[in-house]
Order: sequence, then C-alpha cells, then structure tokens
Amino acid sequence: MKMIKNALNRFIPERINGQKQIPFKGVDKFKSSGKITNPQIRTCAEYPADGNKIVKNLKDALKKAGLKDGMTISTHHHLRNGDQLTNILFDTIHSMGVKNIRWFPSASFPCHSYLIRYLRDGTIHHIEGSMNGPLGKFTSEGKMKGVGVLRSHGGRYQSIQDGEVQIDIAVIAAPTADPFGNANGVNGKSACGGLGFALADSEYADKVIVVTDNLVPFPCVPWQIQGNNVDYVVQADSLGDPSKIVSGTTEMTKSPDRLLIAEYIAKFMDEVGIVREGFSYQAGAGGTNLAVILYLKEIMKAKGIKARFIRGGSTKYLVELLQEGLTDYILDGQTFDLDAVRSMHDNINHVMTTPFTSYNYHGKGNFASMVDAAILGATEVDINFNANVVSHSDGYLLHGIGGWQNCLYSKCTIIAVPSFRDRIPVILDEVTTLCGPGELIDVIVTERGIAINPKRKDLLNTVKNSSLPIRSIKEIQKEVYEICGGVPAKPNVNKKKVVAVVKWVDGTVMDSIYQVVT
Amino acid sequence: MKMIKNALNRFIPERINGQKQIPFKGVDKFKSSGKITNPQIRTCAEYPADGNKIVKNLKDALKKAGLKDGMTISTHHHLRNGDQLTNILFDTIHSMGVKNIRWFPSASFPCHSYLIRYLRDGTIHHIEGSMNGPLGKFTSEGKMKGVGVLRSHGGRYQSIQDGEVQIDIAVIAAPTADPFGNANGVNGKSACGGLGFALADSEYADKVIVVTDNLVPFPCVPWQIQGNNVDYVVQADSLGDPSKIVSGTTEMTKSPDRLLIAEYIAKFMDEVGIVREGFSYQAGAGGTNLAVILYLKEIMKAKGIKARFIRGGSTKYLVELLQEGLTDYILDGQTFDLDAVRSMHDNINHVMTTPFTSYNYHGKGNFASMVDAAILGATEVDINFNANVVSHSDGYLLHGIGGWQNCLYSKCTIIAVPSFRDRIPVILDEVTTLCGPGELIDVIVTERGIAINPKRKDLLNTVKNSSLPIRSIKEIQKEVYEICGGVPAKPNVNKKKVVAVVKWVDGTVMDSIYQVVT
Repeated sequence: MKMIKNALNRFIPERINGQKQIPFKGVDKFKSSGKITNPQIRTCAEYPADGNKIVKNLKDALKKAGLKDGMTISTHHHLRNGDQLTNILFDTIHSMGVKNIRWFPSASFPCHSYLIRYLRDGTIHHIEGSMNGPLGKFTSEGKMKGVGVLRSHGGRYQSIQDGEVQIDIAVIAAPTADPFGNANGVNGKSACGGLGFALADSEYADKVIVVTDNLVPFPCVPWQIQGNNVDYVVQADSLGDPSKIVSGTTEMTKSPDRLLIAEYIAKFMDEVGIVREGFSYQAGAGGTNLAVILYLKEIMKAKGIKARFIRGGSTKYLVELLQEGLTDYILDGQTFDLDAVRSMHDNINHVMTTPFTSYNYHGKGNFASMVDAAILGATEVDINFNANVVSHSDGYLLHGIGGWQNCLYSKCTIIAVPSFRDRIPVILDEVTTLCGPGELIDVIVTERGIAINPKRKDLLNTVKNSSLPIRSIKEIQKEVYEICGGVPAKPNVNKKKVVAVVKWVDGTVMDSIYQVVT
Repeated sequence: MKMIKNALNRFIPERINGQKQIPFKGVDKFKSSGKITNPQIRTCAEYPADGNKIVKNLKDALKKAGLKDGMTISTHHHLRNGDQLTNILFDTIHSMGVKNIRWFPSASFPCHSYLIRYLRDGTIHHIEGSMNGPLGKFTSEGKMKGVGVLRSHGGRYQSIQDGEVQIDIAVIAAPTADPFGNANGVNGKSACGGLGFALADSEYADKVIVVTDNLVPFPCVPWQIQGNNVDYVVQADSLGDPSKIVSGTTEMTKSPDRLLIAEYIAKFMDEVGIVREGFSYQAGAGGTNLAVILYLKEIMKAKGIKARFIRGGSTKYLVELLQEGLTDYILDGQTFDLDAVRSMHDNINHVMTTPFTSYNYHGKGNFASMVDAAILGATEVDINFNANVVSHSDGYLLHGIGGWQNCLYSKCTIIAVPSFRDRIPVILDEVTTLCGPGELIDVIVTERGIAINPKRKDLLNTVKNSSLPIRSIKEIQKEVYEICGGVPAKPNVNKKKVVAVVKWVDGTVMDSIYQVVT
C-alpha cells in the first residue's frame, strides 16, 4: 500500500480498494472539475402502468434488480439500533450465494454486529459508512477484507452525487409506503421520523427497493422518498424493534462536570452575542447537548428572544422549544424520540431536512455554514484545535462521523469535551485520527475552562473581561496531564496496515486508521 | 427543410432549429438509450458562507450568470396572465444588447404579447413552450425567427432531464423566498400556489436566479424550490398583478350543452364502475370540468363513497370536496384560485405535485397512468379518436399542451367537446394537428352523444344496456356535418413552412404546425 502525505501531513493510501484517491488539499482548496453522475434514462413503459411495483419478497426484488457478486448495496440508518431489515437483507444475499458486496450504509449500529459472520465469510467485502461499536472493533483488528471508508453525512451525499460511489441497489426501509414506492418515516409502527439519509440513494442508485411494514394505498403522503425513483416495493412483517428505533433514551446528563460544560457553553454563547433575536444553532442529542438546550432556554426566556431555527437531531427538548414559541422552526435531519416523530408529523414548522439541503459540500451552498453556532462532541482534540470523532486514544475505530464534519462550517463551532475520560486526557499534542481541521474549530469547552482558537481574535477580544474561565488550550492540557499522570501513551498500531480512511466533505482523504495490535 | 414521415404518417422536419429530431415511433415504442444530463459539480466555497445570495438587481444577476447571445432562458407560468416579471426580464436582456435568446417558458399567456417586439427585433430567436393566444398567432403567421417547439408539462421535464434542452439561465418568479434561494408560491402578495413547473429548471439549469417580491429570513418554508440549487436572489417590488395571478375567474359553465356533456360524463363514469370507493380522477379548471366535479359530487354523496385522490389544477370546487371529506387528497399541479392557494398552504392533504412526480415519461413510472379517469378538452377530434389541443381548424396555433398529453395515459381518458363551435364541426376525418394518438383516447363525449373507442370493448360491453346516448363517432360526425353544412374546409396553410412542432411525451416529434396563409 503506497502512502502519500496530505496537506495536514497525514499519510493516506494512494489507492483504496483499487480506487485512486485525492489527498486532502486544505479547507476549501479542492475544486472538482467533474460532473454530477448521470443515471440511465428510464421509461414509464418499463414500469407497471397501474403503479403497482410490489414483488413477492426481498429475494425476488434482489433477483429482479440483477444482484451479483461485487455489487454495492446501500441502506439507511433511520431505524438506528432497532434495524432488523439490514440483517435480513444480508441473510438473503448470503442465501443467494452472492459474494463480495460493498455495503454502503449511512451508518451501522451495534445491532449490525450480526453481520460479522458475513464479513468473515466473504458475503460482504467491506463497509463504507459509519461503523459504530462492534463493526468498528472488527475493522480495527484488521479482519475486514477491504478498507473501510468513513464519510460525513454530507460527504456520503457528495460521493453518491459525484459518482464516486455508484450504488447498484439501494434497499430503503420505509415505515410507510405505497405500492408505487412513495415512502415516509412519520407513520406506521416502525415510525422513525424523516428518511433524509436515503434521499441520495433513491435519486442515484441504479435500482431502488423500498421495503415496508406499513403498506398504504397510493398516495403515501408525505412522500419523503419519491416513488418515481423506485423500482420495486416489498412488504415485510416488520422492519425492526420500535422500542430501539425510537429509543426514548435521549437522557439529559446528570454528571456535574458535563452540566458545568453545558452551562459554560450557554453562557459563552450569550456573552459573545450569539444568543440574540433570530439566532440559530445546531443541537445534538447527546446528554451534554441536551443540557445546553435547557440552559439556552432559560437565557432566551429571560431575554425574551426567539431563535429563527434550531437544527436537530431532534428530541422532546427541541420540540418543547418549538411548542413554547422559542424558535420559529426545527430543521431536522433525524428524529430521535417519539415526541420528535409526532412533531414532524403534525407541525409544519418541524421541517425534515436532508444531507442535500444541510450538508452537501458540492451544492450551491448548504445550511451548515448558515448556523450561528454548532455544539459538537469529540473523542480527542489537540493543541492545534484539530479534533477526532471516530477513534479512541487506543486506536480503536468505534464511532461514525455523522454530520460532524459538515457542522464544522458553522459560524461558531464549539467542541464540548470532558478534559479526560477514564483517566485518559482528551486534549493531546496530536489527535490519533484527524477528522476536523483546527482552522474550523473555534472553541473547545471543558469542565476546566474554555479554550478559544487563537485565530478567533474577535471572540478573544469580546470575552477579555468575562468571568468565564477562558484559558489557553495548552494550560488546560498541562493541568490534565498532571492529574492523569503525564503524557498519555500512543496507540499501539501497525502503520503498515490501513484498515479505514476518513474522507473530508469534498471527497478528499483526510486521515488513515491503522490496525490495532492486540 | 427536409420532412420525414413518422409512425402516424405525419410529416415532421428532420431537423428543428439545427437539432436532429427523432420522429414519433408509436405509443411506448421509443426507448432512449441515453443518460440523464449531468450538471457541473459545484462547491460551497463558490457561494456565500452566510447563505446570502442577494444581488442588487436582475441585470446584475444576469451579468453574473454570464448572459450572452444565443443562450436558453427559462421561466415558469405559475403567475399566469398576471406575470409581469418575464416582460421585465426581456426588457433587461434587450437593454443589455443580448440577442437570439431561446425563450423556454413552461407556458406563455396573453400578457406576454408584449414580447412580440423582442421576437421582431431578434432579442428572442424563438419560443419553446406553450404559446397561448397572441404569441401563437404571431408564430402561425410565420413571423418567428426559429421554429416553435411545443411540449407537454411532462415532456418539458423530460427534455430538461434528458439534456435535450440545456437551460443556461432559469429565472424563477418566487412569491416568497429567502436570501439563500429557498422559495415557495403559497405565501406573499403574489401567491400562486405551487411552483412545480420550475422544478426541473432549478435542478438542471446552469445558473438559477430567484426573483421575489416577498423576501423572508432563512428558512423560507416550505421550500418548493431548494436554495441549494440557486445561484442568485433578486428582490423586486412586484412580480405581477395578483388579481390576474389568481384570477378567480374559474367559473362553472352555464351553457346548457356543456352542462349536458358534464352530466353525461359523470353518469358514464358511474355506469362503467369508475365512481367507486377509493377512485381517482383528474379534473381540469375549464367550465365543463368544473360542472363534472359537481355532478360527481352528487353521485359520491348519494353512494356514500370517497375518492382516494383527485388531481388538480385545483379550484374552490376541489377544495370543497377535500373539506367535505369526499376525497382523501388533492394532488395538485397548479392552483387556480385563492381558495386553492389557501388550501395548499393550510391543509397537508392538499399536496403539491410536480411534472416529475405526475408526468415525466422518463422516470420509473409517474402518477398519470394511475388515475382512474381523466377528463380533457380538445380543439378537434377525429373519427380515429385522435385529438388536437393546440391549433384551430383554421390552422392557427392558439393553445399550449399543458399536462394534456400526459393525462392521456389515465385508465380511462375522456375527451369532453361540444360537437361544433361557431358552426365549425369538432369531429373531423383527420385532426389539423395531431397531439394525442387515438389509441390512448377511450371516450369522446359531446352534447349529441358518447362515442367509445372500438378498442375499449370492455367499456362498450358494460354500457350496452345503458340509457346513455352511446353512439358511434361517425354517426355523431355525420349529424354534425349536416347541421353545419357539410365537410369543413381544410386550413389554408403553407406546407413548405413549419412554424412549430408538437413533441410527444418521450421527446419524439408527433406533428408539424404550418404557416397560415392570410
């Protein structure tokens, strides 16, 4: 594997799974001269005039779609850890004797550890997409046949749109669908909210199969996925476990340290002038982020102001803001609990967004750069404000990128991290895996203080008389190193074996993830 | 101009405006082997990070968009006869000294007769799109520099999608928009309902300019047009005359003959079993069609049944059906009056559709073929059930195709026509311009009787004991010829000069329209 150095001095493979790569050139430095991919022109005459695209089962649909060895099969992750369809899909592919599939999910979850058998037996060649938990561990140990490719939600859209990844067959789990293939996630027993992560798949895959456990007569309204892009519809008894699809486990943090971080963030946002009439921010569904929402809510109420929009992942806490008139809109990429699903169903101001609208870097702009502040997590940060969101300091790949890289384009990107976890410092000299370049990260907030990127002189100036604990990142690092017993150990990895790479939002390669030596 | 004969024995030019043509091959006979057009990949770095794409005026936007001689400029017709923007657009283009524009509207209206000056002086080379009224007359008289190309709504989408027409600059009138370019037609003083006719333009044009007279802060919700496809946003004082945008003139017919036709249609639909629980039909906004709605409403109420969906053009009469629970959905391509605009704004079951969902023949199916019955008008029909919708028997091109050709794919296509107009018979031996092949037209209903296409043996069988006046088309024709004084004169046209052509839904050429000798 020939390695080359990119603009961040990270080594990346020249070729990945046989495909030549473009090394990261710097933020906003790479301009593609290519064209958007162009699918074959279809004709209505090839499809049933009565709009009934139902075929008898998934196997039949895969056969009709021409499934064969080496194809790329995509799925979405809106069913989260309750997804059973993807496992059934690969049982079916395996039963058909088909091998070497490139699985292209928008993300995978612990429930997909079931698929390790198919990674072992060659049914699946490799995964391109988030590998949360067990599949990441499997990959880290060098057991996957191909090299994993990690992309942000926006990067996934970009890669499909640009033809970098040609999906042969998209299998779209649809909590509600009609026989024509119109589909949504807001109705049915497997309701999950929006289906935005499947949009690009539906638009650009060669064949599109919609699988539903709630078939309704045409028209299925709203049609988050358009039947005009769908080839076959399959009825299934169940797509998964509703209690895990909408987990209801989005719980506020009770940790005093994390509550303190949340409070610092809300106060900081207020002090630097972000919290003003008509502002916007991106809230995640993590415990610290939920606490930020509540602190901001208090400030907004006290000041008598209203946000113009809040970007979800949405939960009941966001829905309450909308209901209480504290924001005009929720612009929502995924819906984490039942309150949020209901809100998206009932409230026209709770708007579904897609990776196209929100995150696609290869569009005529996107929403991410228009957000006043984004509050994000990280597994590690470094003294140059670079951050890692996919691997741990022991080298294990255990998380996906999600919309994280895309959100870095917000006007003020705030990373919320505890200063150490399990006595392992979070602020390093250099992150294990570089996922986000420091030049896009404005503020790092820990329970020990708030570090502002020296590039943001405007922010530093604004808070110079603040009572908040504004400190240099090195000062916080030093204190943490002393608590944790010095400079942490480097991960024990085999630099000769790249198990996965991290792409940037423009399709270039930002960093490599190496085999962990166990 | 070399002419070739197509599958319907109609002569068509081998080349139109320099472009080689494919003659009509028969219904469902032509399969394109091409690929969908693929625009250049864009990059967020080329667009303002804060999402503010406002430029100071239309001239500035056109300059930035690189306007030059010979370009293709598109507009939509949702502002109907109240549109002032298009006239201002060409004033601007003229003032910039740019020539030979191909104007590609989704339709033109009498208000656009203003543009004849620019057709004369060479600013506009020719029009591709419906030419209702004065522009049609101008074209018929051989005064347009190029050859007009008429397409159905679906054919227009198809031609853009397939790259047959490459739009250089789309200028989209938006009754509401935000600085990012998200736009809708349901809010603002120029509200017109949906903006579906501009969808393809926004997706595939090289440059997209949104012009609005109601700028709102991001996000403009709903975003019928997505800002992610938009290059520039222009603020204007006014897009047009609201009283003509939403005319309020969709009046029920009072003509006894037309009321009789409407009654026949409703009764026929009932007798052949179309009017049943969960049925669907396409209603137009013409006077006869509105009367059909009322007759059907009575039948539905009497039978205690409900439609699954009704396709608009929508008016207050359709809105009432929705409000009274007589249909689950209105699937609406354009909104003709204020009641309909309000309904689309307020009622989630009044759903905007686009030429992509409804009519695009080069998709994986579309809605048109799933509709139980479509009731359409025509200027002429012939004894082989062919129909004409664009020209009069004197040869003048005076109407656009609209969704008419696309709707012919419904399960039962009913043409509603008076048997004569101004003492000119409507049922001919051969239509002046062939727009719809007889094999797709199932029933022709006149005030003198109902003619069923002999191909529809099932329908003929079902009504054999009916009290309705089921007659052969030739019998009705004969009667009308006697009333009107014999076989009507052929139009006086110059067969050496084709002034426009009619395309079929698949992009092939169906017929030619010739210069009228005056």
